[in-house]
Amino acid sequence: MAYDRAAVREVLDKARAEGRTALTAPEGRRICDAYGITTPGEGLAASAEEAAAVAEELGLPVVLKIVSPDILHKTEAGGVLVGLRDPAAVRAGYDQVMAAARAHNPEAAIDGVQVQAMVGGGHEVIIGAVTDPTFGKIVAFGLGGVLVEVIRDVTFRLAPLTGEDAMGMLDDIRAAEVLRGARGAEPADRRALADMIERVGALAGDFPELAEVDLNPVFATAAGAVAADVRMLLADRPEPERVRPSREEILASMNRIFRPRSVAVIGASGETGKIGNSVMRNLIDGGYRGHIYPVNPKAPEILGLPAYPSVAEVPGEVDVAVFAIPAKLVPAALEQAGRKGVAGAIMIPSGFAETGNAEGQREIVEIARRHGVRVLGPNIYGYYYTPENLCATFCTPYDVKGGVALTSQSGGIGMAILGFSRATRTGVSAIVGVGNKADIDEDDLLTFFEQDDDTRCVAMHLEDLKDGRGFVEAARRVVRSKPVIVLKAGRTAMGARAAGSHTGALAGDDKVYDDILRQAGVVRAPGLNDMLEYARALPLMPTPAGENVVIITGAGGSGVLLSDACVDNGLSLMEIPPDLDEAFRAYIPPFGAAGNPIDITGGEPPSTYENTIRLGLSDPRVHALVLGYWHTIVTPPMVFAELVARVVAEERAKGNDKPVVASLAGDTEVEDACAHLFDHGVAAYPYTTEKPVAVLGAKYRWARAAGLLRG
Amino acid sequence: MAYDRAAVREVLDKARAEGRTALTAPEGRRICDAYGITTPGEGLAASAEEAAAVAEELGLPVVLKIVSPDILHKTEAGGVLVGLRDPAAVRAGYDQVMAAARAHNPEAAIDGVQVQAMVGGGHEVIIGAVTDPTFGKIVAFGLGGVLVEVIRDVTFRLAPLTGEDAMGMLDDIRAAEVLRGARGAEPADRRALADMIERVGALAGDFPELAEVDLNPVFATAAGAVAADVRMLLADRPEPERVRPSREEILASMNRIFRPRSVAVIGASGETGKIGNSVMRNLIDGGYRGHIYPVNPKAPEILGLPAYPSVAEVPGEVDVAVFAIPAKLVPAALEQAGRKGVAGAIMIPSGFAETGNAEGQREIVEIARRHGVRVLGPNIYGYYYTPENLCATFCTPYDVKGGVALTSQSGGIGMAILGFSRATRTGVSAIVGVGNKADIDEDDLLTFFEQDDDTRCVAMHLEDLKDGRGFVEAARRVVRSKPVIVLKAGRTAMGARAAGSHTGALAGDDKVYDDILRQAGVVRAPGLNDMLEYARALPLMPTPAGENVVIITGAGGSGVLLSDACVDNGLSLMEIPPDLDEAFRAYIPPFGAAGNPIDITGGEPPSTYENTIRLGLSDPRVHALVLGYWHTIVTPPMVFAELVARVVAEERAKGNDKPVVASLAGDTEVEDACAHLFDHGVAAYPYTTEKPVAVLGAKYRWARAAGLLRG
Repeated sequence: MAYDRAAVREVLDKARAEGRTALTAPEGRRICDAYGITTPGEGLAASAEEAAAVAEELGLPVVLKIVSPDILHKTEAGGVLVGLRDPAAVRAGYDQVMAAARAHNPEAAIDGVQVQAMVGGGHEVIIGAVTDPTFGKIVAFGLGGVLVEVIRDVTFRLAPLTGEDAMGMLDDIRAAEVLRGARGAEPADRRALADMIERVGALAGDFPELAEVDLNPVFATAAGAVAADVRMLLADRPEPERVRPSREEILASMNRIFRPRSVAVIGASGETGKIGNSVMRNLIDGGYRGHIYPVNPKAPEILGLPAYPSVAEVPGEVDVAVFAIPAKLVPAALEQAGRKGVAGAIMIPSGFAETGNAEGQREIVEIARRHGVRVLGPNIYGYYYTPENLCATFCTPYDVKGGVALTSQSGGIGMAILGFSRATRTGVSAIVGVGNKADIDEDDLLTFFEQDDDTRCVAMHLEDLKDGRGFVEAARRVVRSKPVIVLKAGRTAMGARAAGSHTGALAGDDKVYDDILRQAGVVRAPGLNDMLEYARALPLMPTPAGENVVIITGAGGSGVLLSDACVDNGLSLMEIPPDLDEAFRAYIPPFGAAGNPIDITGGEPPSTYENTIRLGLSDPRVHALVLGYWHTIVTPPMVFAELVARVVAEERAKGNDKPVVASLAGDTEVEDACAHLFDHGVAAYPYTTEKPVAVLGAKYRWARAAGLLRG
Repeated sequence: MAYDRAAVREVLDKARAEGRTALTAPEGRRICDAYGITTPGEGLAASAEEAAAVAEELGLPVVLKIVSPDILHKTEAGGVLVGLRDPAAVRAGYDQVMAAARAHNPEAAIDGVQVQAMVGGGHEVIIGAVTDPTFGKIVAFGLGGVLVEVIRDVTFRLAPLTGEDAMGMLDDIRAAEVLRGARGAEPADRRALADMIERVGALAGDFPELAEVDLNPVFATAAGAVAADVRMLLADRPEPERVRPSREEILASMNRIFRPRSVAVIGASGETGKIGNSVMRNLIDGGYRGHIYPVNPKAPEILGLPAYPSVAEVPGEVDVAVFAIPAKLVPAALEQAGRKGVAGAIMIPSGFAETGNAEGQREIVEIARRHGVRVLGPNIYGYYYTPENLCATFCTPYDVKGGVALTSQSGGIGMAILGFSRATRTGVSAIVGVGNKADIDEDDLLTFFEQDDDTRCVAMHLEDLKDGRGFVEAARRVVRSKPVIVLKAGRTAMGARAAGSHTGALAGDDKVYDDILRQAGVVRAPGLNDMLEYARALPLMPTPAGENVVIITGAGGSGVLLSDACVDNGLSLMEIPPDLDEAFRAYIPPFGAAGNPIDITGGEPPSTYENTIRLGLSDPRVHALVLGYWHTIVTPPMVFAELVARVVAEERAKGNDKPVVASLAGDTEVEDACAHLFDHGVAAYPYTTEKPVAVLGAKYRWARAAGLLRG
């Protein structure tokens, strides 16, 4: 698309030169013209006569709007009249609008009255762009009136955006059907609407100083889209530029930090109960095989290893320095570590920004930048990286190696991650605390985990993003090859922000995170336990090849609840083709129900479970299985678990590798059966029909976002 | 309100006499008049001239609508014209509408054209009533157009309903603010709208044969409400009357069934693996102290007890007969049991309606009715009632006595209930399978549990209700004294029903269950695990005295997630008054955060937890506490658990009895700490911030429904 940037530049510079942040309607219109955004025919009138003449030229009826840089809310000022049907009404209207505006604000500079062809019909929608504090420029779209303002049925994307993304926005609101002509309404020209959204995104992207763009209403008809009212605001001051290291620079540091040849522990101690003692013991007991250099000016030896008075005196190279000293001693020690050339400073101490000591935190970042040291923390429990047996934390070592990397912004959540992982024997590649995120943040970690073959899935707890756009870029790359799960805390605490436009008011909302994380292909977890369960289960499951989910259950009651859960999680219950239906029926009692769920009925022997599950795994039209087990004497829990594990392994060996999840209803023995199934790659849960389907749903959300289900 | 029932009767009888189920617009209007439902001024015209005359009398503009019993969808037939502004247009319009109707259906009988004053402005709403298959007559309300038809923003209540209930409906839609005048819209006359809803409810209640009543649109303005279009349909056949035993009759049977002096086991067996053996062993091993009479024609003695060839030959009275024989042997045995005067037949056998043998099921119900025997099942695992050590099931005995009664429609879900209860040591009064519900259903059980002092909370899994209205009546009574939790399975499977009106189409929806269960004061659980967790936790918690919830947390990260969960669960975070804030601050480090959540910060000693928790419990303005614990060396998990249990007990002894829930973030030791807390009345969960708040939210939902928070 061709945009006239120079014309916009001129309008903005003029407003800026006049010290204004609000653009007038004619200015807004000039900008729209420059970006190909259709507005109604209009003209500016400086007298009642001129208004009538313009109206006759445009064609009646018309709308009159006061034009004044000092009157932002025109309607409230009595500065808007609609539906003027003849020249006399226009003349009278002109006088009325001028009088109202003067009464409203006698000081206001008035440029005249805008005479606008009255547009209408079709659907009223709102299209806008604002600067989000986390994500920068974002575009909003919704149906106007009650839907967007009361129901808040609105959707957001990063700006700029492609036409395809814009088209996706049209389908992403709850009332999407309306634009397609639901219930006899006129279908909108969706292409024209998407085109206008794309143009607004381009405008916002090209001119960061445009703080808010608000087209409201836009009339969307079968013939096109017209922005009937335009409001634009300039930012008070320019957005600060963010400087980010290149991917290569990040990886150079991160690879040294996660696979260090040597680790110095600054503040190492032989005294039990001290953090510097816990870190030393965890490095040693965890089985880390690189050099460990305790640093302590008062001890010649700690836990059998020679100690050094400072990191400067360590004989060899040092990749990582773990800090276990009080905050006030950090700057001097970090200066030494910087000179020594460490790649990473693992900053366990608290007492920085989280206690109000923002200055102290700035100081250490400044020292680190000067020496090219990356800082993790401060105010963290440390980090684990199991492929290197590296346990640089003050907690206890974690040793169940596996595919998931977990990070947390909070220490408490980090402890919950550790406890859950240990209790469920979740296979973990890394557990990382990011704490105050003075330097290293989620983008850096994603960049490392993306190319880390030991990590197959990333799960992150976060309360904010320092650079939402950087995160989205990194996440978009990573999700192509591995799922990224995010628990965003503080969903409901954002509250309303003061804003000068409708779009601005709508944007102060968790929905922005929701839409943009989804756009990035991230799987958002609704709560802590969900994040942990997704992290545990997703790496176990192969990627499904398509949308056909089949439920096989021994308990009709579970089948109904599993179906409910499938719908809740956006999964498609396969319509079983007649030949397959017949094949299933051959294995189940005559009063059982084929269809989907396939109810094999209670009291069946192991062979019925085995035959039907094998059929589901081997038929190429089936893409994932949800199993419902009912505890009976005929098929006890562990018999079920062993047969499922065996059948899944046998079919996998034949190339039939599909996600299988299970819900086990029964007495307490089902818990051991679930553990056995998990150990054999089947995500299985006792006493719940929701969890197995929720983790399968999460896997599907990722697979769709990664584009793996399109074939 | 005064309703003219005779006028309605006359209209309905005439339509019925003419073999019609669709009422004409003038008929609908006469019914509206009789029930005080305002409709626009109108008249029937038989010629173009007459139409113009009527229009001038009513005042222009007008709407024309064809009147024909054979044309139901007038708009589709071209039989509606709106906005006719002068007599000439009305005359031309009359001819056009007649021609269109004839073209649409040349066979149609045409009564003329309805001339209606054109109403409009304000808000378009829909008010209707339909016959729901579960609940009978229900009333629907929503905002018209996109909101109700695409977003499905609609709410339902049982008909008839009070004016207060009707007013509640106005607030129960998502777009409720609109009617209050949100965003500059005209506020509706809410009293007039509620009044119209109440009148529609009365009409539907008075005339069960009115299958569908559809007022759409109703124009709601500040001046009142006018039903611009009325559509009414008669049922093809009358609804069958439901006969229910009286509360006294139900209780007489239920008390004998749950507290039997004697139990006969029909099909008792000495052979391990048989159901009749499991039942015998469970009765004996479970510690049941009444008489146990094994019935088996082939054995003189079973498990050391004398056996009888038939129940008729049992020497004493028999309160309960447990059936553990094949379906085909049931009728004869039931006949004998009936003659013997048993109160309840516990019908374990399958092979009835669930396998297509509906006839067999009808037969046993008929036998039971004849003898005044109540039947539980068939197709169930049996029932437990722990106060009597009564374990009449083929599972294993359950012995953790406590306050919750659980019922399930499905055997699989029953086994999940048992396993979960055992694994979590949930205190249970009863576990009951209802299976096919041939006779005893949830209403009967609620009636018993209501007056059972050993039951403090009821949790029910159900897939359908035989008599939704009976259930609501029973539930309404029970919830006044104890919570009723319902897991309704099949939420998403109902699909669309064929329907002749907008209201009818809207009603084919799980939303009906949702609204009406809520209206009954029932706490609906979103899934199986939620139901189980609510059942475990609710009886532990005292009833909160008010809405002020306070979060006290050692981990800021948990505090954020706990706040999110509070908002998700409709809980109100207390605004801490300045004096209380100061009192909390005295106990926490200067960089901690008072406010709410109260962040005492990590690394604090037990005394900080103790002081702040005690303050929260003792200050009468605080009504419930949510605790967030972070595992540290300074305050290990069991130290935290023991101090919380002690402080809660001490404060309870002083009369400060409040709900306390806790989220424990830490290594695996937190699991034992949670178990200890649960044993001491604090609902505590590891690795989740959602569950503790969800159970507290459920307790609040019940307390509000029971009217206990109004003081």
